[in-house]
Amino acid sequence: MAAAAPSSLDRTFHALSDPARRAMVERLSRGPATVSELAAPLAMSLPAVVQHLAVLRESGLVASEKVGRVRTCRIEAAELSLAEQWFNQRRAEWEERADRLGEYLKKFPDGEPK
Amino acid sequence: MAAAAPSSLDRTFHALSDPARRAMVERLSRGPATVSELAAPLAMSLPAVVQHLAVLRESGLVASEKVGRVRTCRIEAAELSLAEQWFNQRRAEWEERADRLGEYLKKFPDGEPK
Repeated sequence: MAAAAPSSLDRTFHALSDPARRAMVERLSRGPATVSELAAPLAMSLPAVVQHLAVLRESGLVASEKVGRVRTCRIEAAELSLAEQWFNQRRAEWEERADRLGEYLKKFPDGEPK
Repeated sequence: MAAAAPSSLDRTFHALSDPARRAMVERLSRGPATVSELAAPLAMSLPAVVQHLAVLRESGLVASEKVGRVRTCRIEAAELSLAEQWFNQRRAEWEERADRLGEYLKKFPDGEPK
């Protein structure tokens, strides 16, 4: 349980703590998009969008490729999946504990061994 | 896709972007713990631990209760589950897209309609 070195999860969760960046990830989960397409529904300047994209790229959640003057972004599903797995593990532990507690209470309905 | 007002997910992902706070959530997923028990494996001062706990409580991920001089913390599984669902939705969209792409390529192996 010792605090780990700054990890990919630090950057992923930091990236996802902003609603505009989550909106971009939501959009890209449905398919690649250009920077302008990502910017269109967001109420912010293009430089602000580019800065958010930089955070998403550094986190590994988004990759992008420039062809001519157009930069196209896509989701990195593997990175998203790593973060999802962190939650899956917590839930598995939580449910295992709830099961153990249930078994215990079935055995000792008063909450403690006689 | 417009940027939403600061939400529970903002706070949850911000809380989880720190390895010490994730370590606390990992510990609490396995069952309640006192503040001292949470602090024991972490290489930091008790005030630092208390500050991290405050962030976790504000995010709604952790609840705590003080009995006498002992504060006991527990995980709020519902809040953890909300964040997990966000990832589940992204993956569902991603997989749906991958399926549609697969169907398309089966129909048009050259990548475009004749």
